[in-house]
Amino acid sequence: MSYVGTNYHGFQIQENALTVQAVFQEALYKLCPEKPDIKACSRTDSGVHAKKFCISFPYSGSLNNARLVTALNHLLPPDIRVLGAVTVPENFHARYSSVGKRYVYRIFTSEIMDPFLQGFALHYPVPFEIGRLNRAAALFNGEHDFHAFAGSKNTQTDTVRRITRSEFVSCDDEIRYIIEGNGFLYNMVRIIVGTLLNLPLGKISEEEILNALNHGTRTRYMPTAPAYGLYLDEVFYAPGDLTNDNT
Amino acid sequence: MSYVGTNYHGFQIQENALTVQAVFQEALYKLCPEKPDIKACSRTDSGVHAKKFCISFPYSGSLNNARLVTALNHLLPPDIRVLGAVTVPENFHARYSSVGKRYVYRIFTSEIMDPFLQGFALHYPVPFEIGRLNRAAALFNGEHDFHAFAGSKNTQTDTVRRITRSEFVSCDDEIRYIIEGNGFLYNMVRIIVGTLLNLPLGKISEEEILNALNHGTRTRYMPTAPAYGLYLDEVFYAPGDLTNDNT
Repeated sequence: MSYVGTNYHGFQIQENALTVQAVFQEALYKLCPEKPDIKACSRTDSGVHAKKFCISFPYSGSLNNARLVTALNHLLPPDIRVLGAVTVPENFHARYSSVGKRYVYRIFTSEIMDPFLQGFALHYPVPFEIGRLNRAAALFNGEHDFHAFAGSKNTQTDTVRRITRSEFVSCDDEIRYIIEGNGFLYNMVRIIVGTLLNLPLGKISEEEILNALNHGTRTRYMPTAPAYGLYLDEVFYAPGDLTNDNT
Repeated sequence: MSYVGTNYHGFQIQENALTVQAVFQEALYKLCPEKPDIKACSRTDSGVHAKKFCISFPYSGSLNNARLVTALNHLLPPDIRVLGAVTVPENFHARYSSVGKRYVYRIFTSEIMDPFLQGFALHYPVPFEIGRLNRAAALFNGEHDFHAFAGSKNTQTDTVRRITRSEFVSCDDEIRYIIEGNGFLYNMVRIIVGTLLNLPLGKISEEEILNALNHGTRTRYMPTAPAYGLYLDEVFYAPGDLTNDNT
């Protein structure tokens, strides 16, 4: 599915807050009175967007995949769209079967913000050298202990993750930070972005970033970038896990 | 300026409705207590967006153009941004000095709507041939009496306009209809789009479109496309009218 995160307190269901899961479940349970348990690929923070978000659930209804998609979209609000459905092996789990994810962080760099990107990209009208940003971004490639890049609410004890892509790409008045890896800690991408964007401001150096990676200590110059610039862009699964019988 | 039209009843000030002009004037009048009269390049319908909208007004304050832009943006809401200011000759008029305009209409053609384009593009999941659409779009090129393509609230008695570009361009899951001309009647672009998009649905033929152009009669198969897909993209002025002293 894809959703605009603006109006939701993240994906995962919680008391007294509107979440994507709560809205999705309400739609799904109209079609499946047995109320199947939903497994999600990720939680996503409040306000974070998703271009591609995967969930799995046991389905015993009579609709084929294409009709299930149509029926769900009919019941869902326009800011949440189911993009497709595939049948998976019984032991498939949207989170544990995932072998990696890609996040994109959108950054608008012109002096005057594009009003159409308000809430969809961070406004960052700061002179920068993309080559220098990319030298620092490359420090995150490989296997590292990301303890320094986890928000205080992180509950994972194993904080080692493998990053396979970490780079800025330029596109008109925008730069996009793209990061792929086998897993991400709470707030990890937003702290990495907040840290990297302090580089052109002279608030942090490449050496200090490397220190944080090596020693696991977060400093005050490693802020959390706003949620609204962040997109869960893709969730990766092993090829055998997904059979393509969407139509 | 550029603005997201979603929350506004068009540009032009009116009683009991929130308009872009009302919001802009409130900001401007804080900087200019003499309340200068604002001339706008166009009215734009309720909900229509603008990537580039031009206004003119006499300014006798002490700010230079760049500082005036900054001060206005500080006072305006984020869905309205002033992109620049230039000094113009005293007889310049944002509407009457304009020699033409470009509008873009965004149409999302995939079966499942992109939730990020909700309110920013028309969802039109209809099989179409872009070559056939463009043959029909080309009928509008040149000088025609657009009487059949004016909304019922049109107040212009001279309904002849010269169109210099009328075409669809394809871009991923989207097609964009681009029209340039020396002037546009009330609802004209939206009726042209509504009419052209009835072609792949078999509700209207090229011959009937030509008939409407030649005889000035609007039929029931020439609907008005929704406002939220339409963008005022550019306003053209004679080169001598604008001096570029924005910085």
